[in-house]
Amino acid sequence: MGANSSTAFGVEAGSPDAAEAGVTDLFAVLAYGEISAFYRLAEEAKLSPTLRGKVAVAKMAANEMDHFKTLERALSDRGVDVFDGMAPYVRALDAYHASTDPSTWLESMVKFYVGDGIAADFYTEIADALAPEVAEVVRDVLAETRHSEFVIDEVRTAVEQNRSERDRLTLWGRRLLGEAITQAQYVMAQRDELTDLVLSATGDLNGIATLFERMQDSHAERMRVLGLG
Amino acid sequence: MGANSSTAFGVEAGSPDAAEAGVTDLFAVLAYGEISAFYRLAEEAKLSPTLRGKVAVAKMAANEMDHFKTLERALSDRGVDVFDGMAPYVRALDAYHASTDPSTWLESMVKFYVGDGIAADFYTEIADALAPEVAEVVRDVLAETRHSEFVIDEVRTAVEQNRSERDRLTLWGRRLLGEAITQAQYVMAQRDELTDLVLSATGDLNGIATLFERMQDSHAERMRVLGLG
Repeated sequence: MGANSSTAFGVEAGSPDAAEAGVTDLFAVLAYGEISAFYRLAEEAKLSPTLRGKVAVAKMAANEMDHFKTLERALSDRGVDVFDGMAPYVRALDAYHASTDPSTWLESMVKFYVGDGIAADFYTEIADALAPEVAEVVRDVLAETRHSEFVIDEVRTAVEQNRSERDRLTLWGRRLLGEAITQAQYVMAQRDELTDLVLSATGDLNGIATLFERMQDSHAERMRVLGLG
Repeated sequence: MGANSSTAFGVEAGSPDAAEAGVTDLFAVLAYGEISAFYRLAEEAKLSPTLRGKVAVAKMAANEMDHFKTLERALSDRGVDVFDGMAPYVRALDAYHASTDPSTWLESMVKFYVGDGIAADFYTEIADALAPEVAEVVRDVLAETRHSEFVIDEVRTAVEQNRSERDRLTLWGRRLLGEAITQAQYVMAQRDELTDLVLSATGDLNGIATLFERMQDSHAERMRVLGLG
C-alpha cells in the first residue's frame, strides 16, 4: 500500500525525499515511544514492593528521556517540531499500552524487558536500510538499557520457585508479542512513508513476514533469559 | 539538641567525624528528595492539559534522577549505601508531599518552582559550611533546572488575566512555605548530625532564625517572579 500512495503527496517512493520523510516519521514514532514508556514506567513503579525497585525503575524512565532528547534534537536538525511529528502515533502507542496494562510488578518488569526488546528488533532492522548517521541515532536510542540486569534478576528469582507465576508470566509474554505486532502494523498503516521504509529495509512483503518471524525468535530467546517459556 | 546527643554515638560534635556524618546525612536526605520529586512530578504530569506540558515535566523529572545518581555516587564514595542512608528521611519527605498534594496543573507548577526553591535555599546555606568539594556536590544537585522558564511562563500566563486564580495560587504558595519549614524542622530532628551541620552553618539558634527569615524573603521574590503575591 505505502509505496504507491506516497506518490499522492508528490514524493516518489524510493527517492531521497521519500526516504527523508520516512526518517522523520521513524524518529517521531520512536520519540513518542520514549515519552509514553517514561510515563508507563513511572506509573508502574507504584507496583514495586521496594524502594530499591522504585529507584531502578526511575533510572530506566530517566534513560528513556535521554533518548527522547536525542530524537527531539535529530528532528529539530531536520526542521521538524517533535510535537507535530509525534501526533499521528499517539493513538496507536496509547492503545498498545492500554491493552497491555500490567496488574503486578512482575508483569510490569516482563513488559519492560520484552516490549522494549520487540520494539528494538523492529526498528533496528529498519535502521539497517538507512544512511549510517541516521541508523546510528536509531541504534543509540534503542540500545539495551544498563538496567536490564535488574529486571532479569527480579523475574528469574520470582519464577524459579513458583511454577504458577511462571506459567502466568509466560502467557503474559505471549500476549505482549501479539499486541506489539498488531500495533506495529497499525503504526505502519498510519504513514505510508514508514511502510516504504520497512519495505526498503526488508525487500518486499515476504521480507516483512520474515522480519516478523525473526522477531518471534528473538522474543522466545528473551523469554528464556527471563526463565519463562 | 543535636550538638550534645550526637556524642552518644561516640562522635564529638565539631570533630571531623561528626562533620563527615552530617555530610552523608545531607547527601542522603537530598537523594530521597530527588527520588520523591521524580515520582511526584511523574504523577502530577497527569494534570497537564497538553502533551507539551507532559514532556516538559518528564524532562524535569529526568533531571532529578541525574541529581539522584550524583548523590548515590557521592555516598558510595563514602562507603554509604544510598538506601540505608535515605531510610530515616522517607517519612518526613513523604509527609511533606502528602500534605501539599496539588489538585490542579497550576498548583503542581507552583509547587515545583516554589518547593524546589525553598529546599535549594535551605541546603545551599548549609553547604556554605562544608568542605569545597562537598559544597560543590550540593550546589550541583540543587542548581535551578533549565526548565524553570517553562514553569514561569505557564503560571504567569494563567494568572495574568485571572484574579481569582492568582489569589488561590498565592494562598497555595503560602501554604507550601509553611509545610516546607515544618518538614525541614522535622528532618533536622531526625538526625543530630544534620542539626549540627545547620548549627555550624548558621552559627547558633539565632542564626537558624535568620536563615528562615532569608528563606521567606527569597520565597516572596519567587512568588513575584510567578506573578503571584
